[in-house]
Amino acid sequence: IGADSWSLVLAALAALGLALEVLVARRRRPVREVLFFPSKPSCTEALLAEAASPDDTPVPCPCPLPHGDCAFSRLLRHLLSARRSLELCLFAFSSPQLGRAVRLLHRRGVRVRVVTDAQYMALKGSQIGLLRHAGIQVRHDQESGYMHHKFAIVDRKMLITGSLNWTTEAIQNNRENILIMEDAEYVQPFLEEFERIWEFYDPLKYMFFSKENK
Amino acid sequence: IGADSWSLVLAALAALGLALEVLVARRRRPVREVLFFPSKPSCTEALLAEAASPDDTPVPCPCPLPHGDCAFSRLLRHLLSARRSLELCLFAFSSPQLGRAVRLLHRRGVRVRVVTDAQYMALKGSQIGLLRHAGIQVRHDQESGYMHHKFAIVDRKMLITGSLNWTTEAIQNNRENILIMEDAEYVQPFLEEFERIWEFYDPLKYMFFSKENK
Repeated sequence: IGADSWSLVLAALAALGLALEVLVARRRRPVREVLFFPSKPSCTEALLAEAASPDDTPVPCPCPLPHGDCAFSRLLRHLLSARRSLELCLFAFSSPQLGRAVRLLHRRGVRVRVVTDAQYMALKGSQIGLLRHAGIQVRHDQESGYMHHKFAIVDRKMLITGSLNWTTEAIQNNRENILIMEDAEYVQPFLEEFERIWEFYDPLKYMFFSKENK
Repeated sequence: IGADSWSLVLAALAALGLALEVLVARRRRPVREVLFFPSKPSCTEALLAEAASPDDTPVPCPCPLPHGDCAFSRLLRHLLSARRSLELCLFAFSSPQLGRAVRLLHRRGVRVRVVTDAQYMALKGSQIGLLRHAGIQVRHDQESGYMHHKFAIVDRKMLITGSLNWTTEAIQNNRENILIMEDAEYVQPFLEEFERIWEFYDPLKYMFFSKENK
């Protein structure tokens, strides 16, 4: 057979591979996971390094922390699975590792949007300044109540939500829960809630109250 | 036909009715609901009165608050559906209506168990003292981290969980979410977490630290 025929065969094989991949992806069981905290302290360098340069040979981290699986590493892994978009709606965000992960996704071209609470974001240790510095879009409330949500949506199909604020204190010391779910019945309302809040907190709509009016 | 035959026919009909009821209950779609807050202020008297005396003719409440459906009334309704057991694992519990609902369930014979956070339960407005006074079992942490969960399990099959603390402030002013779900994959881990915490906070196991050791 000639070169042309070989090209045809190869193209057909590639198409078949792609079709199979699509089928497998469709058949994959939806993620349904419950994680409880506190999570044991653990090293997340390998996870973050792999996400930053997936093609490099992983170099084992020499630090004395445990390197195994834990609630926190599972949260981080799901977050780092984002390929296209990430919506974050977080009352408190001060965990340095989660901050690094979000900036890394932004650098990788994932569209990141963050909504947070105005009272909390100015506190010491908040990651919000660093996110803004990296060029990530952040919006915040200007209401007297708290923006108390703690959820993330990965690629518009995976919802991460629960009691856990994204702080080291909460991750390592509190009793907390998060659900990781791909059921459209749960994900869809959260997507709509995010878009609603995102529009509502558009800086063009800010009103500047004096404290007495608030 | 004689009286005996009629009794047989009636018994057969009753058995058929019961069988149908069981089938319908099994076929019922699992509850999958997402509620967002703040919830509009609304009157919950009718809901609470109906739960207290289901056989009485409902008397419309004359108060000026709206009496329609809202996120808070839906939460209350699901909670009041408890027939056998209610597990509560709540960081903050100060909503008077939710407190009344829980005491009402206790009086109705539902087995109520409450786990809460030691730091928060002593604050002004906490419902915990009233629950204990009513004879409801309450246990609390004695750890330095927060018991930050906010979940309820109704009849061991419905999970109510999210960002919402059970306070009027959160219900009426904050942006919050709760999920109401009957998927066993989500409910079961929370049941296990509750039993784990319940045992761990057994008063027999309390250790009394001085502040320096804490």
